[in-house]
Amino acid sequence: MDYQSYFSKQREQHLNELSELLRIPSISALSEHKADVKKAAEWIADSLRRAGLEGVEVHPTAGHPIIYAEHLHAPGKPTVLVYGHYDVQPVDPLNLWETPPFEPSIRNGKLYARGATDDKGQVFMHVKAVEAILKQEKELPVNIKFCIEGEEEVTSPNLPIFLKDNQEKLASDLVLISDTALMAPGKPAICTGLRGLCSLEVSVFTANTDLHSGSFGGGVPNALHALVSLLASLHDDKGRVAVEGFYKGVPELTPMVREEFAKQQFDEEKLRQDLGLTSLYGEEGYTFVERVGARPTLELNGVYGGFQGEGSKTVIPKEAHAKITCRLVGEQDPQDMLDKIERHLHDHLQEGATIKIVQIEKARAFEIDPSEPLLQKAADAYEKIYGTRALFTKDGGSIPIVETLSRVLSAPAVMMGFGLPDENLHAPNEHFNLENFDKGLLTIVEYLKSL
Amino acid sequence: MDYQSYFSKQREQHLNELSELLRIPSISALSEHKADVKKAAEWIADSLRRAGLEGVEVHPTAGHPIIYAEHLHAPGKPTVLVYGHYDVQPVDPLNLWETPPFEPSIRNGKLYARGATDDKGQVFMHVKAVEAILKQEKELPVNIKFCIEGEEEVTSPNLPIFLKDNQEKLASDLVLISDTALMAPGKPAICTGLRGLCSLEVSVFTANTDLHSGSFGGGVPNALHALVSLLASLHDDKGRVAVEGFYKGVPELTPMVREEFAKQQFDEEKLRQDLGLTSLYGEEGYTFVERVGARPTLELNGVYGGFQGEGSKTVIPKEAHAKITCRLVGEQDPQDMLDKIERHLHDHLQEGATIKIVQIEKARAFEIDPSEPLLQKAADAYEKIYGTRALFTKDGGSIPIVETLSRVLSAPAVMMGFGLPDENLHAPNEHFNLENFDKGLLTIVEYLKSL
Repeated sequence: MDYQSYFSKQREQHLNELSELLRIPSISALSEHKADVKKAAEWIADSLRRAGLEGVEVHPTAGHPIIYAEHLHAPGKPTVLVYGHYDVQPVDPLNLWETPPFEPSIRNGKLYARGATDDKGQVFMHVKAVEAILKQEKELPVNIKFCIEGEEEVTSPNLPIFLKDNQEKLASDLVLISDTALMAPGKPAICTGLRGLCSLEVSVFTANTDLHSGSFGGGVPNALHALVSLLASLHDDKGRVAVEGFYKGVPELTPMVREEFAKQQFDEEKLRQDLGLTSLYGEEGYTFVERVGARPTLELNGVYGGFQGEGSKTVIPKEAHAKITCRLVGEQDPQDMLDKIERHLHDHLQEGATIKIVQIEKARAFEIDPSEPLLQKAADAYEKIYGTRALFTKDGGSIPIVETLSRVLSAPAVMMGFGLPDENLHAPNEHFNLENFDKGLLTIVEYLKSL
Repeated sequence: MDYQSYFSKQREQHLNELSELLRIPSISALSEHKADVKKAAEWIADSLRRAGLEGVEVHPTAGHPIIYAEHLHAPGKPTVLVYGHYDVQPVDPLNLWETPPFEPSIRNGKLYARGATDDKGQVFMHVKAVEAILKQEKELPVNIKFCIEGEEEVTSPNLPIFLKDNQEKLASDLVLISDTALMAPGKPAICTGLRGLCSLEVSVFTANTDLHSGSFGGGVPNALHALVSLLASLHDDKGRVAVEGFYKGVPELTPMVREEFAKQQFDEEKLRQDLGLTSLYGEEGYTFVERVGARPTLELNGVYGGFQGEGSKTVIPKEAHAKITCRLVGEQDPQDMLDKIERHLHDHLQEGATIKIVQIEKARAFEIDPSEPLLQKAADAYEKIYGTRALFTKDGGSIPIVETLSRVLSAPAVMMGFGLPDENLHAPNEHFNLENFDKGLLTIVEYLKSL
């Protein structure tokens, strides 16, 4: 039976199984769901066993478990490590979901549920692709290993330790990851770059108590004034980050790279309209896709201090807070960036105020050369199934573990995503377009067989 | 019987009565306390009737009632209008109160309760002072009117209407107000200046939805960036307000006025230590008491936007908000100030963002010449009772109704306060030092008899 017929025949069964997995609320960020996360891990492990994988382990960690499985019976053939995650994002605000997040529902060819596209649906496809080949051909065209974690949505704190401890066991020729998206329906893409990330919290303090703005206003420092002037100093009036040395390690865009970006024919005017903006905004001299794909950024994610209720309150707040993240590219070192920002903040602090800074996340950018043959073969596989060759894109987001996997295992990472950009990852009404579920299964089989 | 003996004899009875009033939670800001506010009004009206006042009315308004009472049997003598308020501030955070806010408790000579000093205690003293004179002498040395409102803590929305509608009835030669404080224990003060006030809310909007900082960061405007740079532009780096024309109408400080401020011998170093500050902060070239008493200020009271929870969230917020109040002096016109600030905000707004501004409060500054004989007599009265002549001070706060009362009734306002600066007005553990309750009663009697 050809694979298309096989997957058609199995479709109902596959979707029932996936729905079973999606019903488990494996929210890694919330401790009250710890048992659910474990349940999802066991579910994945069972499905790997049933698919014919061997050595299946649910490996405990200090946090949520990591699943390992393997099928190593293709001597002389490359070894593929499939990475993915079975944990999901929280679901608030619950009232915005059209159907409950953990009651999968298919509408207009789309499967709605938390985790449908990020990443349970995509992990499940790899399990079923391997199962299909084993059922149809009794053997695999490659050696395969699965490493599926349960902490991706909480920045994978335990995976690097697992990688380090099991470097030999996990050794492979390529890391295959489906946790990204096509550019648009029918337009496949392979992500060849992810920005790095570093984040920090800044708190500014002035008096030891909130003060009345009548009795003290004009005569004492105001934590909010100190904070906003500090935060404003982080950018110049051209939208560039004003932290000294921030752009160190950022590669200049070569004409070739710019050409690759231009190929995407990204419609900035449409984006502007879709977002309801009077204009896009960013560093001068770069297009939107260049800014997001190849330039670093420093963003304020949250700022708060003082009175937020209705009406007015004449208070001079004693403290004010900000949350900041940077996206990094090229050789920018996250620790170095955090240190530079910290120095900038100390240097620009207003008299009469004190500051406390907490560094949080640190992840380097990831980049792979599109001319890598393993990537070219992936693009070919997409072309066979979708009728369109995948474009090589750079994503502005960060999946810190991609860089770590690739570096620790010294293997190229191939990001074959089957989601779509508007599938509400991390938001209410997350869904997965089943056209890409169907085509994705075939693309994975095609790719594994081409290696 | 001399007044000191009279008040000593009545002291227990007086404090019991005041405690009765303090037990009524007349919080004007909270609609669930509407009946309590009314109850407090009736209580005050009854106490005025019992004191011997005539024509006592509880005048309904669109909000909380205003109490009127009079005693006009001193032909040829001046008419004094006593203004005060019987409503109180909310009590949160409740857990910081050592004893419940509406269960009055005396500790170390201080009466603890919400409203003890602001302003039920001080209003009560006027009632009892008048009662004392009538009981002892059967007549008053002046004509007297009471106008006691229940909306002072919510910016007196209905009092100006009442004043306008009853201008003739309320006509008087001076307005006597006890809603301020001594400079320190044993150091009486008469407030001769209050700053004006204007306030506004600013909201900045960018995209029609929150965006992921990975997928969009660096390529779209961030409402928080737009807001902080806008807010930072409101001051220069010397602490001066940078809004064009902001200082129009601000009187220069004459050597005489500066001398008056210097007399307070204000200890800036002690204040700095008390507030736990590394340094005080404000407009260059002015002392703390000058900055607060005679210079305008623009304060951020609240700023918020984006993520405020634990940890980090990689969001580009679609909106951000700020609450701003200005304190005004001299001839600064609140409407003109708000218009100038609004223009500044529009002019300095970052590309790609839109702005919404809501103007809220508007009140002019109040000022009275200390050489006014009615003020001099008040200072004499303090001297007789406290042994120290009252200083003439300027307060940085705003009691908008003082300027309105004085203007509408064309009468000087005499602010004889008996509170202390550290009695936790508007905060947990509000209290009233009973030494000033005792001396205040005598000072009011002394003043009325001196007119």
